[in-house]
Amino acid sequence: MLDRHADMVHNRMVLTIAGPPGPVAEAAFRATARATGLIDLDAHRGVHPRIGATDVVPFVPLGATTMQLCVELAERVGRRIAAELDLPVYLYGAAARDPRRRRLPDIRRGEYERLRTDLAFEPALAPDFGPKRIGPAGATAVGARRPLVAYNVTLATGDLAIARAIARSIRESSGGLPAVQARGFRTADPDVVQVSMNLLDTRRSPMAVVFERIRQAAAGYGVQVLESELVGLAPAQALVDIVRQALQFGQLDADMIIETRLLEHTLGAFGQ
Amino acid sequence: MLDRHADMVHNRMVLTIAGPPGPVAEAAFRATARATGLIDLDAHRGVHPRIGATDVVPFVPLGATTMQLCVELAERVGRRIAAELDLPVYLYGAAARDPRRRRLPDIRRGEYERLRTDLAFEPALAPDFGPKRIGPAGATAVGARRPLVAYNVTLATGDLAIARAIARSIRESSGGLPAVQARGFRTADPDVVQVSMNLLDTRRSPMAVVFERIRQAAAGYGVQVLESELVGLAPAQALVDIVRQALQFGQLDADMIIETRLLEHTLGAFGQ
Repeated sequence: MLDRHADMVHNRMVLTIAGPPGPVAEAAFRATARATGLIDLDAHRGVHPRIGATDVVPFVPLGATTMQLCVELAERVGRRIAAELDLPVYLYGAAARDPRRRRLPDIRRGEYERLRTDLAFEPALAPDFGPKRIGPAGATAVGARRPLVAYNVTLATGDLAIARAIARSIRESSGGLPAVQARGFRTADPDVVQVSMNLLDTRRSPMAVVFERIRQAAAGYGVQVLESELVGLAPAQALVDIVRQALQFGQLDADMIIETRLLEHTLGAFGQ
Repeated sequence: MLDRHADMVHNRMVLTIAGPPGPVAEAAFRATARATGLIDLDAHRGVHPRIGATDVVPFVPLGATTMQLCVELAERVGRRIAAELDLPVYLYGAAARDPRRRRLPDIRRGEYERLRTDLAFEPALAPDFGPKRIGPAGATAVGARRPLVAYNVTLATGDLAIARAIARSIRESSGGLPAVQARGFRTADPDVVQVSMNLLDTRRSPMAVVFERIRQAAAGYGVQVLESELVGLAPAQALVDIVRQALQFGQLDADMIIETRLLEHTLGAFGQ
């Protein structure tokens, strides 16, 4: 378990688990099984959209692991969640069987509440695995994707409409920046709203570019950026790209970090 | 061996070796022994100051290793270099026995050529270990220090005096930024000079502050910064500090990088 990130307003926890494929798949299944017994979606409130007690299980290739292997893990764990926990499972990202399920926001549209009323009747909601009915643990999206950066920028205003308008202006689905998903949220502080993002490919939309676009858009409303925040962990390359631009490095890659280089050699030395 | 960095103008190679203390100390000794047989300082030219075929051997604590252990390694390897290779050895940094030898530039003043003429006669040059005479492999500084960032900024001018003046204005020994050592150098390109630095503590003098000071000073001469360059590897924290400032992160530490977190867990899992 590399990391846990939770907050009360989202009422949501992100767990980051790393290791060899088999144990990681087993851990993902067991965590899902435990959440199924503990979390009742009928009683759950939070600002972040979700479809189930275990909302989403993404498999992410690191090191020498291929995306193809992650797709296979997603299929295997998705099938097992459906069979042993009797939950509807949607395959997404690189594991999606239906191109309309590639993007997680599309699967989450209407959230648990929509699935509860429509799943049994609407053919488009039929899960890839598991029953066409839903209980208080909801459904689960299982998929495979590249490492993403879950990145929030908070604004010095309580006006949620501004965060939402900025989110709309930068997200790809509204014609904004490529590989950027964004929403506006309230925060625990009534005078602060947040642009909450998934950056699916920081090579195509670098964090520095995203930040600058938000800063300028906020300035257009006479609003200042308060701060940036990471949810969970970020890949070294995403941060190194910021450094390269900020200090005009001619060349700078993640493998010029002592810790990254040491990790490569350590994993190599132990044959992983 | 995590990294090798060499260039012809400096005529110098930086090797980065990581591992458990014993094998790293052995590797450092063997590399020194090999260089002693291969490199003739009487025939050596390069823009970077040096006192010997193996100019300097710093032991740097990583992970759970203490500075005290690095000091002990420096003493042990320094004594062995003197005894088995018959070279004068100067202890520096945290391993220095004489406070006038804490800073490497002070040990290097006058370089190999000064040692060759004065070592036998000048008491202040007496080595901590080894003979009071010098051969074509010169002398070696052995020490212990925190991770440093070897950082160069190139300028779009051939005027070496400008690089030297800027270096003087930012280095601590001339009243500049704390924990910064800086010199001006020529490069292979006659139209480009370089401010070459060792940043001994990027918490006290962050890379972004150093870069901005150089950029402004160069602008004062009507000269543009061409680019930044790392020599060898940099610790994750030094780069993360740049990101924190550039994107206004409220909180951002090296352990929020996937690779850094994974390294901690991997070394932990193997009991190192």
